[in-house]
Amino acid sequence: MIKRAVILSTGDELTTGRVVDSNSNYLSGKLSDIGVEVAAVITVGDVPERLEWAWRTAIGLGEVVISTGGIGPTADDLTTETIARIAGVGLWRDDASVEKIRRFFTSMNRVMPENNLKQAMFPEGATVVVNPVGTAPGFRIPITIDAHTSQVIVLPGVPREMKPMMEDTVIPWIQANRGSDTIFAVRSFQTFGISESGLDEVVAGLIAPTEGRVAFRASFPQISMRVTVEGRPGEADRKADELAARLRPKISEYVYAEGDNETMEGVVGRLLTERKLTVGIAESCTGGLIGHRLTNVPGSSSYLLGDLVTYSFSAKTGILGVSEQTLERYGAVSEQCVIEMATGARARLGTNLAIATSGIAGPDGGTPSKPVGTVCIGLVADGASVSRSYQLRGARDWIKLWTSQIALDWIRRHLLGLPISESNILRR
Amino acid sequence: MIKRAVILSTGDELTTGRVVDSNSNYLSGKLSDIGVEVAAVITVGDVPERLEWAWRTAIGLGEVVISTGGIGPTADDLTTETIARIAGVGLWRDDASVEKIRRFFTSMNRVMPENNLKQAMFPEGATVVVNPVGTAPGFRIPITIDAHTSQVIVLPGVPREMKPMMEDTVIPWIQANRGSDTIFAVRSFQTFGISESGLDEVVAGLIAPTEGRVAFRASFPQISMRVTVEGRPGEADRKADELAARLRPKISEYVYAEGDNETMEGVVGRLLTERKLTVGIAESCTGGLIGHRLTNVPGSSSYLLGDLVTYSFSAKTGILGVSEQTLERYGAVSEQCVIEMATGARARLGTNLAIATSGIAGPDGGTPSKPVGTVCIGLVADGASVSRSYQLRGARDWIKLWTSQIALDWIRRHLLGLPISESNILRR
Repeated sequence: MIKRAVILSTGDELTTGRVVDSNSNYLSGKLSDIGVEVAAVITVGDVPERLEWAWRTAIGLGEVVISTGGIGPTADDLTTETIARIAGVGLWRDDASVEKIRRFFTSMNRVMPENNLKQAMFPEGATVVVNPVGTAPGFRIPITIDAHTSQVIVLPGVPREMKPMMEDTVIPWIQANRGSDTIFAVRSFQTFGISESGLDEVVAGLIAPTEGRVAFRASFPQISMRVTVEGRPGEADRKADELAARLRPKISEYVYAEGDNETMEGVVGRLLTERKLTVGIAESCTGGLIGHRLTNVPGSSSYLLGDLVTYSFSAKTGILGVSEQTLERYGAVSEQCVIEMATGARARLGTNLAIATSGIAGPDGGTPSKPVGTVCIGLVADGASVSRSYQLRGARDWIKLWTSQIALDWIRRHLLGLPISESNILRR
Repeated sequence: MIKRAVILSTGDELTTGRVVDSNSNYLSGKLSDIGVEVAAVITVGDVPERLEWAWRTAIGLGEVVISTGGIGPTADDLTTETIARIAGVGLWRDDASVEKIRRFFTSMNRVMPENNLKQAMFPEGATVVVNPVGTAPGFRIPITIDAHTSQVIVLPGVPREMKPMMEDTVIPWIQANRGSDTIFAVRSFQTFGISESGLDEVVAGLIAPTEGRVAFRASFPQISMRVTVEGRPGEADRKADELAARLRPKISEYVYAEGDNETMEGVVGRLLTERKLTVGIAESCTGGLIGHRLTNVPGSSSYLLGDLVTYSFSAKTGILGVSEQTLERYGAVSEQCVIEMATGARARLGTNLAIATSGIAGPDGGTPSKPVGTVCIGLVADGASVSRSYQLRGARDWIKLWTSQIALDWIRRHLLGLPISESNILRR
């Protein structure tokens, strides 16, 4: 029975902050996908007593332990010895692995350093996990402590070697040995215009804990909600669909996409592509961020013709044709100005629609009537000319990001025929 | 005595692979800087039994435990209750925190949802750690298990709230309670144009392990190098200055700033401000990213007049005045085109200098002669007209970011009178 995994990441580079542990993130995702709960991720440096503590702790907690790192050729690579000591076994040398490592060096016209032979040593009882990319093989060995047996799987720390080993060998092995006929089905929603706690209130009581688990994730400006159901294949999916259908009507006004990897700019890009429409942008306070986000989407050159960032008065008049009278009478941060900016961008770029932003991102530049956080957005298209002011709060980067999210949501709402006025500022 | 820390990261988003745990990386770096060893990082999901296990394990191992996440307003935020249960105490409501949360909502013209009051509840015996940015305060509480006392510090999971709390409150508190008369003095360099291992080679042997510790941090496109010295106050600073002076001449060609929080765009902004010069941008493949980065710097409206993102042929000719002949003969991704783009942006925006980018960010659009990653950069100023082609490698976002970094480094080098041709691509 393998239902519960522990991930072990080792290396001083992790405990001193030099490297972000992206391996654990990858492994967590892969294990979740096949219904194995990651009970814990434990990270320790290359210190013998910490490693032994971490391994004993991990083996005690998980039915499978997957570790990355610590099997290189150098003196601070201690994983293999640590496991052999805990298992109370000696080491054996795998001739096939020696041969493979030697061939690797020969193919590079290099002599194999003697310490690389260390990478062909395994605890007695271990099965080699082949490394199709590099020199360091991994291994798998069952270890029993206090009558609890855990399957220990050791992989290298280099992501480009670790990932194929995980996908080609480890995942199939776990699936074959999971000893369960249940799977996990997940349905997720991406929302904007409501806070995490607001969402929580809206869906409160809709799903009993016995039916599924609702969880939220806020990664500003994105708040996602997901419901997870465990059950037999087919059944779990049916139940997850049922729960998603129960949630959908309550949250639909905030949902801009369903699924895990959806971004606002991705949704906008897809809608523009489907409708064969082009968009132009005129940015002031967002400084290029809307263009940057839209051009993060592959293929955006087919609908985004240009983004005219006019940070100065002279650029607003000269590039976009905003009238000096408007700037004098209403100021650059005004609904009148953003309408003229959008109109100018649309005309000069020759696009179907255009969106414009102008605001005071701070920390300086605020006035009593237009404090920091005052933001105007305007959208112009055939038969549409909408502008609105917002009062946002937060630091400069936050105001820029928030404004860009509202602007992208305006485009989405315009394309879907939804009322733009409902694109609310995020209530945190 | 606080010599050994454990970092605790909680949240289903971490154990299911939806979010990379960058908080632990940040905290590990900060703790290492002040000489506190990170004995382990433990990550668990929002599951009561796992949380209790993780907290008991962390408290048993560390003299200080720093946790992030799990103190939001929703039902799956369980950290506060878990700690109170382990400490065997009840919860109290902090009126000052209630008031702060209520004011936050009032200032947004919203009614505070009742569940936000949860964020003002603390275990008895806890000291509130003020959150200067968001609604969720943190707290600190000493907890004793089996005669071992650990200082538990709980912070929110949102990095932009967690970081100021760490820097303003937690680090000074740990330093004051570390129980040692030595301090750690750090000198850091921000570099571009050389890899981590390249830097390591350049400075090899310059500093003996007994003098100080040299460490690297790679957070693309930034690679920083830092030297840390432990010693008595005054002494440690003198020694750190001496070591920095020893390193400086060896790495100066790669260093664009000294100090920890320096960015390339910040350096460029300061140079433009000092020299009272204005800049214009013409972007194609970077899509607005250069403008976005420059406008992240407060006060950038005094030197950045505009950024003309011309993603289409028609925008390049219509907005920037690039000749159709150039586009036909050399293509949009050519040194000829970027020079015309920069020339056009400079003329239309009326700036002292202008920079332009054009390239193939991928994943599609590559050809045999101009594969994905082909990037051209051009800079035009009084008496200067420089262009160059690069062949970059990586995914779309990576190529955009890398190109923006090279472009900003070109502006910096131009302003400092350094040869632009030495702004090398990063050797990964």
